[in-house]
Amino acid sequence: LLEARQKVLKKNDLLARELRRRFEDAGVTVISLASSPGAGKTTLLARTLRHFIEAGTRVAALVGDLATDHDARRLRESGAKVQQITTGTVCHLDAEMIESAIRSWPLDTLDYLFIENVGNLVCPATFDLGESRRAVLFSTTEGEDKPAKYPPIFHTADVAVITKIDLAAAVGFDRAAALAAISSICPVMPVIEVSASSGEGFPTWCRWLHACRTLQLRL
Amino acid sequence: LLEARQKVLKKNDLLARELRRRFEDAGVTVISLASSPGAGKTTLLARTLRHFIEAGTRVAALVGDLATDHDARRLRESGAKVQQITTGTVCHLDAEMIESAIRSWPLDTLDYLFIENVGNLVCPATFDLGESRRAVLFSTTEGEDKPAKYPPIFHTADVAVITKIDLAAAVGFDRAAALAAISSICPVMPVIEVSASSGEGFPTWCRWLHACRTLQLRL
Repeated sequence: LLEARQKVLKKNDLLARELRRRFEDAGVTVISLASSPGAGKTTLLARTLRHFIEAGTRVAALVGDLATDHDARRLRESGAKVQQITTGTVCHLDAEMIESAIRSWPLDTLDYLFIENVGNLVCPATFDLGESRRAVLFSTTEGEDKPAKYPPIFHTADVAVITKIDLAAAVGFDRAAALAAISSICPVMPVIEVSASSGEGFPTWCRWLHACRTLQLRL
Repeated sequence: LLEARQKVLKKNDLLARELRRRFEDAGVTVISLASSPGAGKTTLLARTLRHFIEAGTRVAALVGDLATDHDARRLRESGAKVQQITTGTVCHLDAEMIESAIRSWPLDTLDYLFIENVGNLVCPATFDLGESRRAVLFSTTEGEDKPAKYPPIFHTADVAVITKIDLAAAVGFDRAAALAAISSICPVMPVIEVSASSGEGFPTWCRWLHACRTLQLRL
């Protein structure tokens, strides 16, 4: 099984590399979001899409789920182009699913493309999607030790986003312990603390997104 | 890959069947818990172990995690025998890991054995662990639509446990929508609503556990 898996991963990595080149050529900044189910990927993304659309930024999203198009429908309310990827029983998105979803898209009409992975803090770690940057989210309600317990996804991410900070007091969230858990796994990982409902920390998230794009355009 | 996976699953199913026979012969009731990371498996299980130990019930637990023995240490505080299974990068427990963990255990000295799976609402679905009954947990903070979005794990479970009900008001949890989502996937699934911190609903959970054992001993 391990051998078959490595073959799949190798094929995935090659396709992801090709995707990354296509995204860079088209000048689109691709941000993927990974987290547990219910950590708030869709809520943060919905707010982000609304904010970008209002600011005239050209943005679209791909959303992976085993079943239902709940998230795609929620995200479409922003007015952004959103494509659902239904994975069936597959626990993660892979580069082939992304390639197939964007095949007919004119990528050069986009500034940002967001990819919301299946809710899973384990399996998405090993699949490169060709994204420019990967964000891993975990919520204050999940507990402070998630980074220590799920290292691989944190190792592959470029930023850790702590979500639902408006609930921190209600759940007795220990912020210092969470920050320590992140830095024990990824010593130089930037951390963004955000509540997509109250908007607290949202400007910092947007600044990070802008910096990703700036960095990409300069290169 | 699919072929290799099916071979692994078939091998797993055969071993799980053998485990189930051994558990039944030994008269131990085996309950597995699956959920997203941070849904509260360990907190519920810690309370359950404490309660059982105080009542003189003979109980032990196996705990799966990619990394760290946080959960095993938390559970050992109850006084119960607890064995950590470190999966590395593997996103689920399988029958072989269970078999290897309990190899030297005198199973007939136990009334209950709990198995806490890796936090993952997807991959554990397809791996039979030889358990008597499987509980799938999801918390009020994750959102009401989890059953609709992750059908396989709900299909393989014997009970749905809604956790963190003490936070329902704070997160605007829509109970009716959650119950509807469960019954749309599993029309006859029993549902237990519990807060392992406040203890609300905990007696119902214990009644369900006792019923599982009664049913097993009668058969």
